[in-house]
Amino acid sequence: MPAIDGDRLLKDLYAAREIGKYKTGVHRPTFSPQDIEARHWLAGRLTEARLDTSIDGIGNVYGRDPTPGRKLLTGSHMETQNHAGWLDGAMGVIYGLETARTLGRGIDVATWADEEGHFGSFIGSRSFCGLLTEQEIDVCANRETGTSLRDALRQAGFSGRPRQKVDTARYRGYLEAHIEQGSDLEDHHLRLGIVTAIVGSRRYRIQFKGQQNHAGTTRMAARKDAGVALVKLVAGIEDRFPAIAGPRTVWTTGDIRLDPGAASIVPGGAELVFQFRDTDPATLDALDATLNELLAEAAKGPCEVSVAYRSTTAPSAMDSGFQHALTAAAQSHAPGLHQPMPSGAGHDAQILSQMLPSAMLFVPSIGGISHHYSENTRDEDIVLGCQVFADAAAAILAKG
Amino acid sequence: MPAIDGDRLLKDLYAAREIGKYKTGVHRPTFSPQDIEARHWLAGRLTEARLDTSIDGIGNVYGRDPTPGRKLLTGSHMETQNHAGWLDGAMGVIYGLETARTLGRGIDVATWADEEGHFGSFIGSRSFCGLLTEQEIDVCANRETGTSLRDALRQAGFSGRPRQKVDTARYRGYLEAHIEQGSDLEDHHLRLGIVTAIVGSRRYRIQFKGQQNHAGTTRMAARKDAGVALVKLVAGIEDRFPAIAGPRTVWTTGDIRLDPGAASIVPGGAELVFQFRDTDPATLDALDATLNELLAEAAKGPCEVSVAYRSTTAPSAMDSGFQHALTAAAQSHAPGLHQPMPSGAGHDAQILSQMLPSAMLFVPSIGGISHHYSENTRDEDIVLGCQVFADAAAAILAKG
Repeated sequence: MPAIDGDRLLKDLYAAREIGKYKTGVHRPTFSPQDIEARHWLAGRLTEARLDTSIDGIGNVYGRDPTPGRKLLTGSHMETQNHAGWLDGAMGVIYGLETARTLGRGIDVATWADEEGHFGSFIGSRSFCGLLTEQEIDVCANRETGTSLRDALRQAGFSGRPRQKVDTARYRGYLEAHIEQGSDLEDHHLRLGIVTAIVGSRRYRIQFKGQQNHAGTTRMAARKDAGVALVKLVAGIEDRFPAIAGPRTVWTTGDIRLDPGAASIVPGGAELVFQFRDTDPATLDALDATLNELLAEAAKGPCEVSVAYRSTTAPSAMDSGFQHALTAAAQSHAPGLHQPMPSGAGHDAQILSQMLPSAMLFVPSIGGISHHYSENTRDEDIVLGCQVFADAAAAILAKG
Repeated sequence: MPAIDGDRLLKDLYAAREIGKYKTGVHRPTFSPQDIEARHWLAGRLTEARLDTSIDGIGNVYGRDPTPGRKLLTGSHMETQNHAGWLDGAMGVIYGLETARTLGRGIDVATWADEEGHFGSFIGSRSFCGLLTEQEIDVCANRETGTSLRDALRQAGFSGRPRQKVDTARYRGYLEAHIEQGSDLEDHHLRLGIVTAIVGSRRYRIQFKGQQNHAGTTRMAARKDAGVALVKLVAGIEDRFPAIAGPRTVWTTGDIRLDPGAASIVPGGAELVFQFRDTDPATLDALDATLNELLAEAAKGPCEVSVAYRSTTAPSAMDSGFQHALTAAAQSHAPGLHQPMPSGAGHDAQILSQMLPSAMLFVPSIGGISHHYSENTRDEDIVLGCQVFADAAAAILAKG
């Protein structure tokens, strides 16, 4: 198997870190000037690597191998969360670039727009897979600034261009590398994770309606305290979910708000956002059923309860042949220092896997830190990961 | 006993409602133009009633009976909560005015500044009782606008004036009437409440510090979820307080905040404001001890817990002789339609009771509504209350 150029790889990653540099990380929100600069910078690197390069109408950057034959699609994303890490996304893209340079042929590289969700949900990879309508583009807007996606694309110079769609006959499949964003590899002194599946999730916004009242003069028996009703639901979740959850299930109450939220007023309204994730659809269904039971119990109390928003993402199984290729490459370069593992975070591979055989490779995150400028991975782990990625890509392509 | 003039009483209350009128209520925050207008309007009414009238350096309005002999001090407040009711405060002041007019002598009338706490805590009545330092005035500021109390007093034209202090030799005691702000009288088809004590309270701001993390990649066992720690504390309170509480104890978690409060982030911080109230110091102590036990249990969990703010207000017992006078007057005008009851809300009488024998009379609040523009009391209940108030005042003064 050909050897990657570790210095070249790291030099490109360091160069990318300078674009929107923030402390030891980067700040490149989708379609910010820094993100646009990063896309053009990457297009330049792809062109240097003798790939046909283009940026499409949703902001995806493509480098296509112009030679004949089936290709392996690689990629990830260049934009980041606010004031976030330097490797989250960029590493996967540069792995693709370095693999294309190393193998010489057979590799396409894609940079998907807005994996981080500043404007929507996986709009770049969904556009490529034919899963994003013009109507959805019309309504997407930046969650912080309110700028519409249409305006952002116009300002970036990308509007009016066609949106590229996947040619399933061209591709053998899709391969993506990413930092783990957790500490499981580090905790077990491992250097590589081969993703078995990307978790599915269920997300809810749950509202309670009680009666706002004076906290001094309203007797306990007469109260309809929306905050207490909310707390009892969350306590019920914490009480009952562990028995139903799988070993890697996670559930999170990410936000709670009481209305009006004043010291001496019995809350008349309360709201929470809640989510859980697992790779097993049956586990997700069982947890959803338990939540519905808890909601039914809550509805017997003094407050009204309603689910204002509910969304579902199905788990995405990774291709077993690709997993074998990744495992064999890992075993060759780091014997015994790799493991199969689920991905608790979402990635573009969960979209691509709907159209192409797909797989993912993880490298360790130091201290498990993610979405923070102090996110990091050891240089030797970055280089090792890319070699394993390139070997697996070569093996997959060799199968034709 | 002399009869009050119910039409004159209602006419004054209706006139006061026009100052800062908002829908069916009023909006007169402390030292707003509307509040200042209301203070000057009241000063005019007091002068018409042949009382010596003044406004002091904290904004209290006084009408003093210029005749010799001991006096009964009456009063309440003219400012309101935002967009609140027309009777909360104003009724007690106008009861004092009408009683002064009816009895002809022996009644002083006071309007305490900022009972509603826009700038501080009972600053008007505490100033009168010698319990407010210049240093505290220096640091008070409007909770919404940030305007300093000094600036507000200057803009109102009250700064530089002396602050009047209670002359305990002058007064037989203090009597205050108020709307109930709850539905206990209405629920029991009663028309008058004789306050036995004003509740004491304990107030806390409690903070949890955990570790912010990715909600998809952080295993449950590795989490330090500040939101879950908070929910378990509040659930523990709801579980254990009922067994310790007295029949009229109230406790309230008025606000909860999670940090950063995002759907896919395990909260690294969480904060709640909590309070409880009762008339019995032993009950307050027992609840405080239970809360401390729950905090100690919480501290054994994965998150740090701390009490960032803690305040205590002692219960205030009302004078038993004054209660007898109010009860006798109530029985004379509304036989069987009155009850002794605690005040769950705070009132200036809890401050005055530290210096003078004090008591309070409640009239029903329709639907128990308070601190909302739809707050109301039936006209016949307003008139009945004032007659009972005046009779009790006359009886107290008759005892010398």
